[in-house]
Amino acid sequence: MSFVPADAGYAQRVRESFARQGAMRTLGATLEAVSPGHVVVVLRHKPELSQQHDFMHAGMLTAALDSACGYAAFSLMPADASVLSVEFKVNLLAPAQGPWLRCDARVLKAGRTISVVEARALQHESGGPEKLVATMTATMMTVQGRPDVRG
Amino acid sequence: MSFVPADAGYAQRVRESFARQGAMRTLGATLEAVSPGHVVVVLRHKPELSQQHDFMHAGMLTAALDSACGYAAFSLMPADASVLSVEFKVNLLAPAQGPWLRCDARVLKAGRTISVVEARALQHESGGPEKLVATMTATMMTVQGRPDVRG
Amino acid sequence: MSFVPADAGYAQRVRESFARQGAMRTLGATLEAVSPGHVVVVLRHKPELSQQHDFMHAGMLTAALDSACGYAAFSLMPADASVLSVEFKVNLLAPAQGPWLRCDARVLKAGRTISVVEARALQHESGGPEKLVATMTATMMTVQGRPDVRG
Amino acid sequence: MSFVPADAGYAQRVRESFARQGAMRTLGATLEAVSPGHVVVVLRHKPELSQQHDFMHAGMLTAALDSACGYAAFSLMPADASVLSVEFKVNLLAPAQGPWLRCDARVLKAGRTISVVEARALQHESGGPEKLVATMTATMMTVQGRPDVRG
Repeated sequence: MSFVPADAGYAQRVRESFARQGAMRTLGATLEAVSPGHVVVVLRHKPELSQQHDFMHAGMLTAALDSACGYAAFSLMPADASVLSVEFKVNLLAPAQGPWLRCDARVLKAGRTISVVEARALQHESGGPEKLVATMTATMMTVQGRPDVRG
Repeated sequence: MSFVPADAGYAQRVRESFARQGAMRTLGATLEAVSPGHVVVVLRHKPELSQQHDFMHAGMLTAALDSACGYAAFSLMPADASVLSVEFKVNLLAPAQGPWLRCDARVLKAGRTISVVEARALQHESGGPEKLVATMTATMMTVQGRPDVRG
Repeated sequence: MSFVPADAGYAQRVRESFARQGAMRTLGATLEAVSPGHVVVVLRHKPELSQQHDFMHAGMLTAALDSACGYAAFSLMPADASVLSVEFKVNLLAPAQGPWLRCDARVLKAGRTISVVEARALQHESGGPEKLVATMTATMMTVQGRPDVRG
Repeated sequence: MSFVPADAGYAQRVRESFARQGAMRTLGATLEAVSPGHVVVVLRHKPELSQQHDFMHAGMLTAALDSACGYAAFSLMPADASVLSVEFKVNLLAPAQGPWLRCDARVLKAGRTISVVEARALQHESGGPEKLVATMTATMMTVQGRPDVRG
């Protein structure tokens, strides 16, 4: 699906907002790609993100998926709007071992108020093929007239 | 609902497993209560957990809710089993500002293979009433014959 | 939780709208109770609703749960609004055999645009205790200025 | 993704099981395609499936999506297994008006016990392009040693 952004400065707005998320710094997550309705967030597994068997905690992976989905929706919103997560659902298909996880989010529907976004978390093992470890479907809300940066 | 644990040492098993989760240390989350089919996880908001508007990132809160749900299910499992998150769904009802968040998880159904757990995240503001900020419904799986601690 | 309806005629609006749903007639579902933020829908199992093992099809039960959730949210909306299902998530805890299923829906949050509703499907066997067979968490949307009855 | 079925007679098993669902007869839904890990169910809108504004009731559409997902998973199961819906989540992207709805389900992961399936409901208007009206993510369970047909 191809989208036309409402605001030509969308990529800059996404990057600045992502940079303000303390949670993404804690995860060590970075924005790999931003285009209209599409965002990729990448993170590396580390002990600070682990569950009891040393895999990545499903909730930590969810945080990266949620940011990817939120910013995919935000990339299509007007310049004076901000984004809010209404709900999301995650299926865990395989333990996330790393070393790298790639969260790829695409907008399915960009409504005036409600957007629906799907994301996949793909694991990249060195020298191996990528592996689908989790999916997210998220509902995001456009908060009109309330810019993301609040002075 | 009232449950009889399959293993009398359930609380110890839950506490030891929780203590091995690097993610819970990163969140600063602690176990406040463990009883059969019921677990409470508490965490305090801090800048390392924030989204772009300084609220707690929905994913970070989800990590605490997922651990609460997983250990509520795990508390009813046999001593030689481990727990796996199959999927979860989170609704965000209000921004989580803190200072304290209390994730209260209760098992709805404890099946041989599949358990269903519901959790609520309640915000405690100093001097104010508690406020419901998020709900989770989670599906957990019992992995038989594979103890949580692996030597 | 206790809610004050925005429109004193809420019960009449709910009953009239429910009566226009061809799907509820097909299910043989009826409204058992309507109060502010709370709706109960009851249906009886029959062969027309079955899956391959003669239990009630999860989707047919979902239809009753969705109507219960939608009208629980609608009961709190202004007189000139209509309700739209944004998304829902259902967990199936036990096969629904009937003879009676009771879908009990309660609003958790009634926002200006978004409402969150939880429902439980309880099975009533003759002479036996009720049994929880399914849960729903639903996100409903208030469509402002667009009354439910359209002339 | 490409799957090898565990049982060469999978298509026959799917068709026979689908034919026993009273709910699919009530919907007027038919199986359009069955291949390993992929099932398409088609239905036509009619007044018996409507909600209050004459669109197809989200629950009725969910019933078709659930059958599509269940049989997509079932197509990969051993001959002596049956399938059970554990949970599903549906997002409604646009009102389903018909005349035709096409529910296309594909297995994402076929585990020994748990399968994850995604489906899309596409609306076909006469002379117009297809339109995405709903998505489902479903968790299905393999019930081993319990054939679908029970004598």
